[in-house]
Amino acid sequence: MAAIHTLFATSMGIDTHQEPVVFIRADSEVCRAEGFNANTRIEVSVNDRSLIATLNVVTNEVLPARHIGFSRIAWQRLALAGHEMVTVRHAPVLHSMSAVRKKMYGNSLSHKEMNDIISDISQHRYSDMQIAAFLTACVERLNTDEVIALTQSMVASGKRLSWPDRLQLVDKHCIGGLPGNRTTPIVVAIASAAGLVMAKTSSRAITSPSGTADTMEVLTRVHLDLAEIQATVRKANACLAWGGAVNLSPADDMLIRIERALDIDGTGQMVASVLSKKIAAGSTHALIDIPVGPTAKVRSQATAENMASLFETVGKALKLKVCCLITEGNEAIGYGIGPAQEARDVLAVLQCQPGAPADLRERALFLTAHLLNMADRGELSETTALARELLQSGQAWQQFQRICEAQGGLKSIPEAACSLPLGARHSGTLLAMDNRRLARLAKLAGAPYSPAAGLRLHAKLGQALAMGQPLFTLYADSQGELDYAADYYAHNHDLFMIGEAP
Amino acid sequence: MAAIHTLFATSMGIDTHQEPVVFIRADSEVCRAEGFNANTRIEVSVNDRSLIATLNVVTNEVLPARHIGFSRIAWQRLALAGHEMVTVRHAPVLHSMSAVRKKMYGNSLSHKEMNDIISDISQHRYSDMQIAAFLTACVERLNTDEVIALTQSMVASGKRLSWPDRLQLVDKHCIGGLPGNRTTPIVVAIASAAGLVMAKTSSRAITSPSGTADTMEVLTRVHLDLAEIQATVRKANACLAWGGAVNLSPADDMLIRIERALDIDGTGQMVASVLSKKIAAGSTHALIDIPVGPTAKVRSQATAENMASLFETVGKALKLKVCCLITEGNEAIGYGIGPAQEARDVLAVLQCQPGAPADLRERALFLTAHLLNMADRGELSETTALARELLQSGQAWQQFQRICEAQGGLKSIPEAACSLPLGARHSGTLLAMDNRRLARLAKLAGAPYSPAAGLRLHAKLGQALAMGQPLFTLYADSQGELDYAADYYAHNHDLFMIGEAP
Repeated sequence: MAAIHTLFATSMGIDTHQEPVVFIRADSEVCRAEGFNANTRIEVSVNDRSLIATLNVVTNEVLPARHIGFSRIAWQRLALAGHEMVTVRHAPVLHSMSAVRKKMYGNSLSHKEMNDIISDISQHRYSDMQIAAFLTACVERLNTDEVIALTQSMVASGKRLSWPDRLQLVDKHCIGGLPGNRTTPIVVAIASAAGLVMAKTSSRAITSPSGTADTMEVLTRVHLDLAEIQATVRKANACLAWGGAVNLSPADDMLIRIERALDIDGTGQMVASVLSKKIAAGSTHALIDIPVGPTAKVRSQATAENMASLFETVGKALKLKVCCLITEGNEAIGYGIGPAQEARDVLAVLQCQPGAPADLRERALFLTAHLLNMADRGELSETTALARELLQSGQAWQQFQRICEAQGGLKSIPEAACSLPLGARHSGTLLAMDNRRLARLAKLAGAPYSPAAGLRLHAKLGQALAMGQPLFTLYADSQGELDYAADYYAHNHDLFMIGEAP
Repeated sequence: MAAIHTLFATSMGIDTHQEPVVFIRADSEVCRAEGFNANTRIEVSVNDRSLIATLNVVTNEVLPARHIGFSRIAWQRLALAGHEMVTVRHAPVLHSMSAVRKKMYGNSLSHKEMNDIISDISQHRYSDMQIAAFLTACVERLNTDEVIALTQSMVASGKRLSWPDRLQLVDKHCIGGLPGNRTTPIVVAIASAAGLVMAKTSSRAITSPSGTADTMEVLTRVHLDLAEIQATVRKANACLAWGGAVNLSPADDMLIRIERALDIDGTGQMVASVLSKKIAAGSTHALIDIPVGPTAKVRSQATAENMASLFETVGKALKLKVCCLITEGNEAIGYGIGPAQEARDVLAVLQCQPGAPADLRERALFLTAHLLNMADRGELSETTALARELLQSGQAWQQFQRICEAQGGLKSIPEAACSLPLGARHSGTLLAMDNRRLARLAKLAGAPYSPAAGLRLHAKLGQALAMGQPLFTLYADSQGELDYAADYYAHNHDLFMIGEAP
């Protein structure tokens, strides 16, 4: 067997995000004896714990002799306190990368191959570069069996919630692509006010300026563990939690991080991501909202129908009842884009404020009616009336407050440090807006990492505008980010189309 | 415009291989004001130079306040000396990543899109993860026009050699996949002894245990700059240099580094890589050797013919005369695998030693005869006789020494620190060997990073073996690597098939 090399652990105080990095001196015996180089993948063990990490070789005195430095995530994953003796060796051969290469060449993967890849990823054996290669190889190239295998593997990679005394647990999801389309908190409030049980876990943004979890985090605590989710649902019949904190489908969270860096979101990957979360959460029913529009994530009815069919087939194979709704997606929903701005719209609708965005309200009612219908609460005409009554009577708002209280209390929405109002460049009717570039604009301003960052629209499609009339306001936490976004807008005025009404 | 943030430059003494990394304190004003996080891509400028780097946020006292730390490659690329004032800002939006995403979705790229990607990569604007995504998206999915565009873009990314007084400049290349197939030094020696001019630049190994440049580096200096290559060719009519040192097709070198980490080697990418080097070196003729065998890189005659056709078409479009030879590739060539071991075989053939590997010699003669024929030096029967005569008479060996002298002198071959002879597990005839796993075995022993590492075969296919008779010897520079390779072999005895002769 190979010689055992031991070193003393020390924290480098360097944050390398999710990829574990360790630091060893170039002049150390272990580098020479084991043939370690910069970027070698090595296995670090302490007691019964081990970790695969990327090596950075240190060429000067930042590290004492006979020590190994850890990046923050490597330090946390090995649960180190300092000065432990750790052993290092070459990382074992990563067999599942052969399957990734097979996929790159366009071949199909077996259930076992897919499972091996996801298992290795969830055990942190892949470098960011290897995860990037796996995701890229899968974009638009997964067949239905592979998506089923991927979904099952992602469920198997983490914990599962069980609800012994519940026959029904319903969920909803929007595939995204429409900035500001923050219906989930409203749907959950109304539907649970109607008696449905919803253990809603949501993701953070992948490529958008805000995910439901980002928006909800502005309003209450969303970082709940499994016991807290179960307690919240017992108390309030529903929750609105972040899914990433509960180790449901943890592989998915690691994939999403790289998808975000590469700005990709393939269909098969997305279906597996969404359904794995639902299945791991113990759901029996899932309603999926697929907005279609020229600048939405899905641009044609045919693509939407294929996606709906894949969702329903994979759901059926995994014993989850899935129903897809294809909805109109021509413009941003509501007025706010970015976590805090979207939270303002959500509260306006729930509190039935006079200026509440009608499009957000009507869309939430439409989805809730379908969800109640799917869960056998009556014909669509009946469930539509019920949903509206629960919203208008204030019962949904009371129910929303009950959920937030159970999660730790309702918070006040943060204000951005910097803002910049921007007016119409000329007079005319607002004819179109480019959802993708609007989303990018909000991201450049700092959303979702800075919750108060984003933008607020002051006009909707079809509205007549005078020259200089406020079109939207940019919000950011720092002048640098505000300038960065404003600079992008200066080169992209045409993301709003203002002209003669047809 | 965005605020300008200045920091003092300091070297961190951390080697992150080729990806530039910079370190900034989490408590710094610039992180707060610009919204910088771990893994943010930022642009660092000093005087008229700038660099895109990945940010690692530093959470303790390893970095003084108001300083920015640089990894070794970032420090080198910005040509810093220490304590310069540098400015930092968010990296500009990388437009060419949209084209990468387009390719992921299976769409074709225009010449301009391909050129933008390669230009950004060669200017170090891509992270390793982004390069991995680009390469993966291209594996087996480039059409002929895209390969032509990729080849041209790679040529345009670097310098070009010109040879004003030469009408012919010939080159040869083997696509690889056969361990030990080190014909190039022999072919160059014989062909240039016959009067052909060969400014041969070779690559280091991509996924193999040794590239021609790795093997030649054992014998002489290969790290030549452009002027040295030209001087060597003037002196000796030929050179055997590493291509990476001369900035010919530098984008290719960056792609190869990531291909190596992911262990991939797509056809279109490979054709572009090979031909871009030839064109940038000013070649007029190129002979390509494509070995075919069940465990070689190319496994079927049909694949080899497609590859040959792509080589010839792309060559023609770029005014390079290309001729492909499809050769037998059932077993490793010669006895040595790994830089030093292959160099021993090369010298044995050139010096006409009694134990020289006949298969390596005959293959080199065959290729040289075709090269001479392609360059109008006579019918194949004539060029075959000429090549053999030049080898047997010692003229090729003299010519080889002349080339090495011109490059800095012939070196003595290094000995490995550790070795382990391994015998046949039972008696019988050696029926087959798995080239891929043989290559992996040599790599696990440390090749090509440790030049003396690798293995030496003691038997060829068809040879009868007694139980325990030496089959091969493993070589490594450290006991750790030797153990690592031996452990792999313990689980892969069947990479040699020993049985009844048919």
